Amino acid sequence: MTDKPHIADRMADIQPFYVMDLLARARELEARGKDIIHMEIGEPDFETPQLITEAGIQSLSDGHTHYTPALGLEELRKAISGYYKNTWNADVAPERIVVTPGASGALQLAVSVLINPGESILMADPGYPCNRHFARLVEGHALSVPVTAETEYQLTADLVKQYWDNNTVAALVASPSNPTGTIVNKTDLQAIIDCIHQRKGNLIVDEIYHGLIYEGEATSALALSDDVFVVNSFSKYFGMTGWRVGWLVVPEPYINEVDKLAQNIFLAASTPAQYAALAAFQPDVIAVLDQRRDEFRQRRDFLLPALRELGFDIPVTPQGAFYLYAGCSRFTDDSFSFAMDLLEKAGVAITPGKDFGSNQPEKFVRFAYTTDMEKLKEGVIRLKKFLNLYP
Amino acid sequence: MTDKPHIADRMADIQPFYVMDLLARARELEARGKDIIHMEIGEPDFETPQLITEAGIQSLSDGHTHYTPALGLEELRKAISGYYKNTWNADVAPERIVVTPGASGALQLAVSVLINPGESILMADPGYPCNRHFARLVEGHALSVPVTAETEYQLTADLVKQYWDNNTVAALVASPSNPTGTIVNKTDLQAIIDCIHQRKGNLIVDEIYHGLIYEGEATSALALSDDVFVVNSFSKYFGMTGWRVGWLVVPEPYINEVDKLAQNIFLAASTPAQYAALAAFQPDVIAVLDQRRDEFRQRRDFLLPALRELGFDIPVTPQGAFYLYAGCSRFTDDSFSFAMDLLEKAGVAITPGKDFGSNQPEKFVRFAYTTDMEKLKEGVIRLKKFLNLYP
Repeated sequence: MTDKPHIADRMADIQPFYVMDLLARARELEARGKDIIHMEIGEPDFETPQLITEAGIQSLSDGHTHYTPALGLEELRKAISGYYKNTWNADVAPERIVVTPGASGALQLAVSVLINPGESILMADPGYPCNRHFARLVEGHALSVPVTAETEYQLTADLVKQYWDNNTVAALVASPSNPTGTIVNKTDLQAIIDCIHQRKGNLIVDEIYHGLIYEGEATSALALSDDVFVVNSFSKYFGMTGWRVGWLVVPEPYINEVDKLAQNIFLAASTPAQYAALAAFQPDVIAVLDQRRDEFRQRRDFLLPALRELGFDIPVTPQGAFYLYAGCSRFTDDSFSFAMDLLEKAGVAITPGKDFGSNQPEKFVRFAYTTDMEKLKEGVIRLKKFLNLYP
Repeated sequence: MTDKPHIADRMADIQPFYVMDLLARARELEARGKDIIHMEIGEPDFETPQLITEAGIQSLSDGHTHYTPALGLEELRKAISGYYKNTWNADVAPERIVVTPGASGALQLAVSVLINPGESILMADPGYPCNRHFARLVEGHALSVPVTAETEYQLTADLVKQYWDNNTVAALVASPSNPTGTIVNKTDLQAIIDCIHQRKGNLIVDEIYHGLIYEGEATSALALSDDVFVVNSFSKYFGMTGWRVGWLVVPEPYINEVDKLAQNIFLAASTPAQYAALAAFQPDVIAVLDQRRDEFRQRRDFLLPALRELGFDIPVTPQGAFYLYAGCSRFTDDSFSFAMDLLEKAGVAITPGKDFGSNQPEKFVRFAYTTDMEKLKEGVIRLKKFLNLYP
């Protein structure tokens, strides 16, 4: 075809993960024998806990290779319900739990069921970029609210009130947040919920980094209200990234809508992944996961002061996830070039701010502490040397 | 929430699989000890071939539990490229192959990249219902073309010319088709491709039942043109339904667009499923699959004349897939009630026409021969008894 390809207009607004270019370059450098410290990757370095993997293997040996219902294995929905009861002190009926192909599937279901063309959903900027793209995909509008250290990079009830307009029908909160690692405490979350419900709107709460919270008053939105959409996943805390299995909790009036959409766009989540996930809530697995959580905390407690000492601006101590969102204005007014230079000259890979929105992304970079302490230490040494000579 | 829930308008147009109600009722009856012959299920009754499952188990034992690239494992994309070369005599560069979470993921990518709000995509009715819902999801329009036995329930170049209008940007052909099992032969497919390219449009060809073709001149659209989107899957011929892994072949100018959309909406297909699929093209596996294909053919060759003899109207012999789309006007003018009665009174589950569109669905039912010969024979005996007394 020599003509210009016909590409839907939405694609112009759907950005790639810019870090992929950087990752590709990192792989090239590695192929040439250069050692790279990876602090760009939003994925735990740990493998899936052995008991989970063994459960997946067992289910395959048992021949569980057929479709499950669109809403997921009944046993798994019950197990997730039990997890809310035991860990988050929240009563969530299994009927409200939809197993999805990762949190991605859950976010897509929630956004697609809620947002009409021309309607908007409020979300914090910086934030996980796919959220606004899910809205764009269905011709909705993500109303990005620029957030700062003042609100710990989170929406607040005041911000919701300020930005909510006649076309707004929903808001999305991520706690802990990617890229900032900050959480919304119980009081603030309740205020956000109340404020949105007063406006007859819906709230989606992304809790996919739940479990990876190191301090502060963590709560599930489901302990505060039955009338919220909650997204979670077996990827991060449970260490099952590659399997692609997560879940969505939906308010009762939306169950049938979400069910029929899941039937149509996924059929169901991967069966071996669902059977493997059944093992994720065992005490022996949780013990392993909590040990890993403690290791993440140690990494944070090393990296955070080290970066601050180097001159990165991190005014809020992130309470969760495995990210530090660091102001780099002292060194550059172009964080993308900065990240590229850092990779080329010092062999350290980080993610540029532009992957998280348009709220001064050139002034920020994200460090992920998804590599071991030894490598983090080496990374800091390299950073120090690099910054001494920069630009 | 006592207020009416805010549900996006699109959801009113996205239908559930009606057969699910029937399936739920079948499960109820089974729970009460009633024996049900399942001829409603669009999934092979065979388990995944052992060598594929073993490859999945091996990859898990080896610790492959992390994300793959959004476009899929490079080795798998190369293996699929080899499959096109060896089996379909088509040159397809691995770079054009995107591994997806089932064919569902592939269909969603293709439709979302191509269709703007208000633009339409032509497709045959009856057809796989999700196709029109993928268009609706992104505010596009599925222009359903009523097809009949006259064109073997397929689009033709003439139908494309007749229905194509100023808002049409694409067409979708499924060969073999669900629910009719018919294929588009090489000459007709080439004519459709030419006709669409003359109109600067795009063609999506759903080839997910490829491999399950029993006679006739089967071809992949990729042997005819590089400028088509082709959807395929490891689910049906390869017997990997529950794993959720398929693929999309895209024309070169669309690779980057599809890549960024896949990053955003899926991250990637399930890793264990991708590693398992790597084993799917081995000669020992293909030998098993071809044996199964022969068994499907035997089932068709039993069921087709048996249904015709009972008075179902099946004017075209389906060349592939595992479905018979049967006119039931001789018995009823309400195929949904007919299917429900058949289940209640005779313990035979089939799928009503309304799951496949709005082209006289009340006059058709779909029989799936995804159960063994003994059960099919018993099903025919029950049908005969039922029809003698009907209504």
